[in-house]
Amino acid sequence: MHTVEHVDHASLANWGAACLRAVGCNDDDARTVADALVQTSLWGIDSHGIARLPHYLARIRAGSIEPRPRYTVTRTAPGTAQFDGGHGLGIAAAFAAMALAQTLAREAGIGAVGLCESTHCGAIGLYTRQAARDGLVGIAFTHADSIVAPARGTRKFLGTNPISIAFPRAGGAPLCLDMATSAIPWNRVMNARREGHRLPPDVALDEHGRPTQDANAAAALVPLGGVSYGHKGYALALMIDLLCGPLNGMAFADRIAPMFGDLTQRRRLGGLMIALDPARFAGGATLAQRVAEVVDAIRRQPGDVLYPGEPEERAEAQRRREGIPVEPGLRAEFDDWTQRLGVAPLR
Amino acid sequence: MHTVEHVDHASLANWGAACLRAVGCNDDDARTVADALVQTSLWGIDSHGIARLPHYLARIRAGSIEPRPRYTVTRTAPGTAQFDGGHGLGIAAAFAAMALAQTLAREAGIGAVGLCESTHCGAIGLYTRQAARDGLVGIAFTHADSIVAPARGTRKFLGTNPISIAFPRAGGAPLCLDMATSAIPWNRVMNARREGHRLPPDVALDEHGRPTQDANAAAALVPLGGVSYGHKGYALALMIDLLCGPLNGMAFADRIAPMFGDLTQRRRLGGLMIALDPARFAGGATLAQRVAEVVDAIRRQPGDVLYPGEPEERAEAQRRREGIPVEPGLRAEFDDWTQRLGVAPLR
Repeated sequence: MHTVEHVDHASLANWGAACLRAVGCNDDDARTVADALVQTSLWGIDSHGIARLPHYLARIRAGSIEPRPRYTVTRTAPGTAQFDGGHGLGIAAAFAAMALAQTLAREAGIGAVGLCESTHCGAIGLYTRQAARDGLVGIAFTHADSIVAPARGTRKFLGTNPISIAFPRAGGAPLCLDMATSAIPWNRVMNARREGHRLPPDVALDEHGRPTQDANAAAALVPLGGVSYGHKGYALALMIDLLCGPLNGMAFADRIAPMFGDLTQRRRLGGLMIALDPARFAGGATLAQRVAEVVDAIRRQPGDVLYPGEPEERAEAQRRREGIPVEPGLRAEFDDWTQRLGVAPLR
Repeated sequence: MHTVEHVDHASLANWGAACLRAVGCNDDDARTVADALVQTSLWGIDSHGIARLPHYLARIRAGSIEPRPRYTVTRTAPGTAQFDGGHGLGIAAAFAAMALAQTLAREAGIGAVGLCESTHCGAIGLYTRQAARDGLVGIAFTHADSIVAPARGTRKFLGTNPISIAFPRAGGAPLCLDMATSAIPWNRVMNARREGHRLPPDVALDEHGRPTQDANAAAALVPLGGVSYGHKGYALALMIDLLCGPLNGMAFADRIAPMFGDLTQRRRLGGLMIALDPARFAGGATLAQRVAEVVDAIRRQPGDVLYPGEPEERAEAQRRREGIPVEPGLRAEFDDWTQRLGVAPLR
């Protein structure tokens, strides 16, 4: 048996920032990225939370992530810009790219910033919520290396390419959708392998492209919609890939360097950050209030209906009180990095 | 037994335009809308094709669709505009709104046009393909009256709110995603009722919110992702509703006037048309070529993998040769309108 430790979120964030400074990041980036990872863990999205820090540290040490990147920003039109992330931490670059999209949106009504030469940028709901907290509608896309089979296909081809959309909400946190275009994340397969569980039906294929519930046999994920309606999740993932990769001069689909492959190889990932100023539309003045009314209408629905982002808000309330769960294996990784980097131990 | 007639697409378009002129539309709008409906039928999307013409004619006659609307267009920033469709035919308004978004995109890099006071606008892939044929990336959203239950809910709340994204493709038609956010359209339920078929599993709920395969008992659709992963289709539908309704000062979810309800009641629908100029991004010069390469990569996938829009291209090739299938019930409706309007009979 093993016990899952619960660690205070502020301690985790401080420790994470210290690790990032120790591998060469400046104070601002170290704090931004550590806070973002811990915020994601607070939302309960452990696949994109502080558990990813060791990977980022390893890539910085291996040279494929620059701890002090040189960004190159080119404003190409009143509403558009290209943001070259200089192979730095994707989270810091994505925050900056969305901030620029917000500036463009204030001027041009809508702003779109293409991100290129970047790395894994974590949960994209971080960036759309940033825009929404500023009174704008945020839309974000990123792509990833291949693990999802196309509909009617037998082999992995696309990433779990997510879409996020967030709206300002009167009297509450932004209303935020942040979803991968596969039914489940690959992380869920990894967990099932570790814990000896079977997978639910209609989420994975084996190496021959046959549906499987055996986590150890799983070789690809099924797109959102499952075997019958996965043409929708697949097509959406493909379009997101084009918006992130080819539009920004980056690679697509199975040409993308794997996250957990050669750690010395640059990822060269793309993304697209869009901010839209509601004040330029007929409903702008009342939008945040209408969003609050939608949430009220959802609460009155029969059944146990949640609004988008509500599971994250519930998880955050609990984890702020009880701490963030850290599995023993992850704790060992953390302790290993503490030693290697000579930072103050976590708690 | 009944035989399905196959009608030449050009005859259908001419007849449709004549009907629209007979109820008061100008030549341009009549031609645009009839051609769009027939094009949609050519793609095999019969739910949004020429079968919808009688509904539009009935609404014009009932007064809830204006045959000669007054559009009000307000440019609100370099990249944004509000397009008031004046309760005219949604298809004509949506083409014009996307054309304006394209103009804005040429100037500002990206253009977003909010559509308000409009009516049913058919298949939104019409508008994104228009942008893509012009070398731009087209993104479109619209919303609809409630028929989809939220995840974990028991009662219809949202529309089948679709998203479309289209890219220019070198040497071929645009690559186009056009998908509703429910697993199946309500039209499929209607067909199953008429033909006495059962529904597939995991697509519909009965009036008590229980999953059902009985088409006659179906009272709501399940969002894309089914009972297990429908939180994704549901959340996406909700965000699309906000982009189309509240952003443009229009209603949301179950407050939207039903399509097949009181035909004298204005629909007051919204939409959002976005065009993005690839030339303002790092990959712009090579984008159409990369899209062609993606299509080639998809063709090399094991299995019988199609690219988004390929089923429509296949249907179009067949229907241009063999004609568009018209069910006897629909043919009777057509003949009824021919008589009422005194236009030249269809064939």
